[in-house]
Order: sequence, then structure tokens, then C-alpha cells
Amino acid sequence: MSKLESTVARIGPLDEAAMAAARARQDMLTKPRGSLGRLEELSIQMAGIQGRALPRVAHKAIVTMAGDHGVARDGVSAYPPEVTPQMVLNFLAGGAGISVLSRHVGARMVVVDVGVAADLPPHPRLVSRKVGYGTASLAAGPAMSREQAIQAVEVGIEVVEAEVAKGLDVVGAGDMGIGNTTPSSAIVAAITGAPVATVTGRGTGLDDAGLARKVAVVERGLAVNRPDPRDALDVLAKVGGFEIGGLAGVMIGAAANRVAVVVDGFISGAAALIAAGLAPAAVPYMIAGHLSVEGGHACALEHLGLRPVLDLQMRLGEGTGAALAISVVEAATKVLAEMATFTEAGVSDKE
Amino acid sequence: MSKLESTVARIGPLDEAAMAAARARQDMLTKPRGSLGRLEELSIQMAGIQGRALPRVAHKAIVTMAGDHGVARDGVSAYPPEVTPQMVLNFLAGGAGISVLSRHVGARMVVVDVGVAADLPPHPRLVSRKVGYGTASLAAGPAMSREQAIQAVEVGIEVVEAEVAKGLDVVGAGDMGIGNTTPSSAIVAAITGAPVATVTGRGTGLDDAGLARKVAVVERGLAVNRPDPRDALDVLAKVGGFEIGGLAGVMIGAAANRVAVVVDGFISGAAALIAAGLAPAAVPYMIAGHLSVEGGHACALEHLGLRPVLDLQMRLGEGTGAALAISVVEAATKVLAEMATFTEAGVSDKE
Repeated sequence: MSKLESTVARIGPLDEAAMAAARARQDMLTKPRGSLGRLEELSIQMAGIQGRALPRVAHKAIVTMAGDHGVARDGVSAYPPEVTPQMVLNFLAGGAGISVLSRHVGARMVVVDVGVAADLPPHPRLVSRKVGYGTASLAAGPAMSREQAIQAVEVGIEVVEAEVAKGLDVVGAGDMGIGNTTPSSAIVAAITGAPVATVTGRGTGLDDAGLARKVAVVERGLAVNRPDPRDALDVLAKVGGFEIGGLAGVMIGAAANRVAVVVDGFISGAAALIAAGLAPAAVPYMIAGHLSVEGGHACALEHLGLRPVLDLQMRLGEGTGAALAISVVEAATKVLAEMATFTEAGVSDKE
Repeated sequence: MSKLESTVARIGPLDEAAMAAARARQDMLTKPRGSLGRLEELSIQMAGIQGRALPRVAHKAIVTMAGDHGVARDGVSAYPPEVTPQMVLNFLAGGAGISVLSRHVGARMVVVDVGVAADLPPHPRLVSRKVGYGTASLAAGPAMSREQAIQAVEVGIEVVEAEVAKGLDVVGAGDMGIGNTTPSSAIVAAITGAPVATVTGRGTGLDDAGLARKVAVVERGLAVNRPDPRDALDVLAKVGGFEIGGLAGVMIGAAANRVAVVVDGFISGAAALIAAGLAPAAVPYMIAGHLSVEGGHACALEHLGLRPVLDLQMRLGEGTGAALAISVVEAATKVLAEMATFTEAGVSDKE
């Protein structure tokens, strides 16, 4: 059995007894029942994920997977491809959006080169697991081989397992890759069946002509490759990306280890569709961190049955929305663990 | 000139130069322009409030104003009135929702007795500024005198000024008071002109009969008192509450001292309507922390032109929504101050 298959096989259901205990405790805390809304729901989900009535969020990490895309040379992005390695260096130097927000929420940041089209200098915080120097253009044929798709997913599993070994209660899944909204649109269209124009947006800032070009590229990619929506590895290989596969692996690896995974934006949402295709049992371990401005994101979340925690009109990726949501998830677990009950506080309950 | 009048007179406009500098810097940071959405907007608003291009959120406080309501004896709440002092003690002991969330976001908690209908034991963190032992029932006549209304607002101003003296960059405005969604509905209906049934909700958990009774009480209160919507003090005195006046004072005092104030939920939103009536110039200093489940809240925010930062289906009050939003505001200022520019990071800008 492959690493991927054995990991998928290890994913169990949420712990119903722990969830029932968390729900019962929420109803005893000094507040009107249900009045903390989403915080209560998140605390109960976390109890089910961790298999304990009082879940904790002590160890937090953001895994940001970076990869390049052959299709970026087809005029689908407002930024040149060399920005991918430049931004990886910016992550490591602490100057990127995700650097700032990881620090803000107290999450360690793990940057993974799973397919950047340049050699990156060694760095203590850079995990080098390159599957290739960028994908081939999905507009002309498969982005990668099926073997590479499996390899990318397994990189994600191994990265998250290394973090589990250090202690991990929740992980955020973020991306970096110039051009990567194009494969994400292709994945969302292929798997959900939504029209390409609905799930293709302006990415980092395309104008109208650029957007029309991008829609045409996604449509060509789907027509040329004909990915099988019932075979997530086929979709990933034909119209995906190395970092998207890596993120799907992070989600599967997290679920197999009973760690909550906070999905970030559109690219991370596309990866979640791949992960759900490979391992439907992983979905209950997912928390949708935020709703991206990129239109296809809502479509992906709806297909997965996930409701975003935040809606801050963000569209940066990198794990930035996941980082902010992790703080809300942590707050949810603290409410459950630290609030007094009516009895403890001597407060009269509802008449 | 009264304390209230002199404070209102001190409120200046936001600093346009600081906002322009913040906006210009946001456009130089290593991300697609606008891609951090609401975080970018909040950082620019904070620059205008603080009058500096790089605003900071080092000192945070939540002020929770507590008061009782004569109308709580008219069957408008699911909880008995003695819960107000019991919950104040729970705040001070650290076991309430706002206790947990203040700690989570690193905000100091200030609990103010501005009108609890019981004597509370002294406590180092309790500010005792009682205007009265609860209001009179607004269903039978004015809740308080005009002099008491002014006094309640001035308590809020003085409390926030004491916090400013300790260092304060952002303050959250929270409430505690069994029965206080009833005066809040009356205020929102009186000032916005919205129908009572639209702005009256289930509060802590009324059933259908309780809700119908509450709507009738609010309608009777407005019919008996005929508050003048153009005179915010008249509205506060006739159908308001001591803690609502105190919160309006916190908002006015914050604005006069160039401190951002994060409005919490429905009661805090009603207080914001009073503050805006007394001092329209205070509104740009407000940030709507979240959208409450209580229907009248959206109506109040719309009237104020405020857009909520979070929507977590919460309806607890106490400042809980404000606390979570303060963390987002802090993140926004860190992004502005700590992210590298394209030039600093050696990242290629958009072509």
C-alpha cells in the first residue's frame, strides 16, 4: 500500500462522544445557550477532531506550499513567474503578509518548495521537496504525470507529519505560485461542474482582456485534458499544480493524525476538493478559514459543505485567511475550557 | 460648558494626511493591491484616527458597562434581573465569555457599575459609578431623568479618559444588563424609524409569546414617552438605560482622544446611535466589531453607515464580538507596519 493509500485508510470519523460532552458543557456555561454562535460550533468540531471533551489549540502552524505553473507563461497572471521564488524568500525573511499574520496568531510558519521553477538557497525554515521545476502548461496537455501528482500529495502528508511530531493542534494550509488561480479554476470547474466563467476570476488583478484570456485558457485546458471528475488524482495531474497537490496532502495528513486543518482561500479550496476526492473522510477535519473575493471559492466551499469563518474581502492567499481564522478557532476552544458554568459562578439560569 | 459638551467639541475629523500615507504604503507592500481587503481599510482608518501613518495597537481595553432595567420586571427577558450583578461578579472572577476573550486578545478588562440594582462588593477591577439602582420601566414613563442621562454619558467619558491616561489605542464597548435588548430596540426604532417588530428580537432566548410581549412593551414605551429622534439625550432618558448611556460616553470620549472604538453587538449599536446623535463626528472613530444575530443590529449599523468586521452568529454582548474584532484591527496595523515593500524585498511588481 502506498503512503497515500495507507494515510487515507487511517482517517477515522469525528469522536461523537467527545462532541456530545463539549456540546453539553457549552450548554452549562454562563451565557444564553447558543449565544456564542460559530464559536460554540467550532469548539464542538474541535472536540470531535481531537477526541477530547476539552480540545486545545496550543501548537499552531501554517504550511505554505510554493510551486510554479507552466500556464503562467500564457498571459494568465498580472505578475511575472519570477515572483514565486522572490516571495518564498520574502516569507523566510519575515516580510510577507503570511509572515506578519503567522506571528500575530502565534503560529509557526513552514514554507515548502514543492515545485518552484528556480533553485532556492537553503534556509532553516525552508523545506525543500521539489517534485519538479514548475508544471507543464495545462493548456497544452497534462500539467504533470500521475506519479508526480501522487508524489506532491505525499510531500504534503510527510510535511504535516513532521509538524505533528513537533506538536500540532491546528494547521493552516496556504499557497504561493504565480498563475495558480488558473489550475484552481480548472479543478473547481472539473469537480463541481460549474461553468468556467463562473469560477474564473481576476486573481492578482487581471484586466478584462486578461480575464477573457484566462477563461479561454481554462476552457482549453479542460477540453485538451478531459480530467475525470471521479478521479481526483487525474484532475490534479491534468489541470492542477504541485503546491495544490501538496496542500491536498497536508489536509489528508492532518485528518489522519486528528489535527484540524484550516483551509485558506481559492487555491487551498481547490486543494480541498482534491483531498475530498481522495479521502471523503477528511472533510470533517476541515475548517474554511475565510471567503475569498475570488468567485470560484464560494463554489468550492459549497461543494464541500463548508461555511467560511471570516469574510474580510481578502484574496492574497499564502495562508493569510487561515491564520486569522486559527485565532478564532483558538478562541473557541478557550471559551469551552475557561468559561465558568452557571453552578460554578453562582449565576441563575434561564427561568 | 458641561463635560459632555466640551468633549463633543474636542472631536476632530480623521487625519487625511495620515490616511493618504497609509494608503500609499499599502500599495507598496508585497501583495497585489487591495488583496488584504478589509485589513487594508482598517489600517487606513486607524491611521486617520491616530493621526499617524503607522498606527499601532499596543494598548487595548474592553469597557463593559453594567446596568439594570425596570422593564426587566415586565416579562421581556428569559433571565431574572439578579443575573446582572451575578454576571458582574463572574466578569471580575474571570469566568465569563468576555473574560476569556479579553485574555485571548490581550485586552485589559474594565467593568463599570453604572446602574446595577444591587450593591456590589468593592473589587480592584470594578469601577463603581452608579447613576441609579436600575432604571424605571420605560413602558410606564421615562426610564430616567435627562440629568441622569447626561450623568451616564459623562461616566462613560470619564472611564475612557482614565484608560487613555494608562495608554489606550483601541477600546471595545460591551454591555451587561438583563432586559437591555428592550431599551435597545426602542432606541433603534425611535432613531431609525424602523418598525418595532423589525428591530425587536428574542434577546437571550424568548419564546414566541415572550417576543410578542416584548414588542408590545417597546411599542407602549414609545407611545407613552414619545422620544424626540432629533434629541439623542431625550431618547436615552425616555427609553434607554444607564449602561447604554455609559457606552455612548465611551464612544464620544474615545473619539475626543483619537482612540478607535470597536462597537460590539445590538446594545452597543444602540449606544452608537445615541453617541452619533450627540456627536456625529464620533462615527468615523467607530468600527463595527461584528454583526449580531439580533435583527435590530443590522438596522442600527446601516443607519450609522458601519460595516461589521465579523459575522459569527453571536448574540452574547459583554463586548465579546468587539474583543475578537480588536484582534483583527491589531492584525491590520501590523500588516501595514511590518510587511516589506516590493523594493525592500526585491520582489518584482505587477507588469
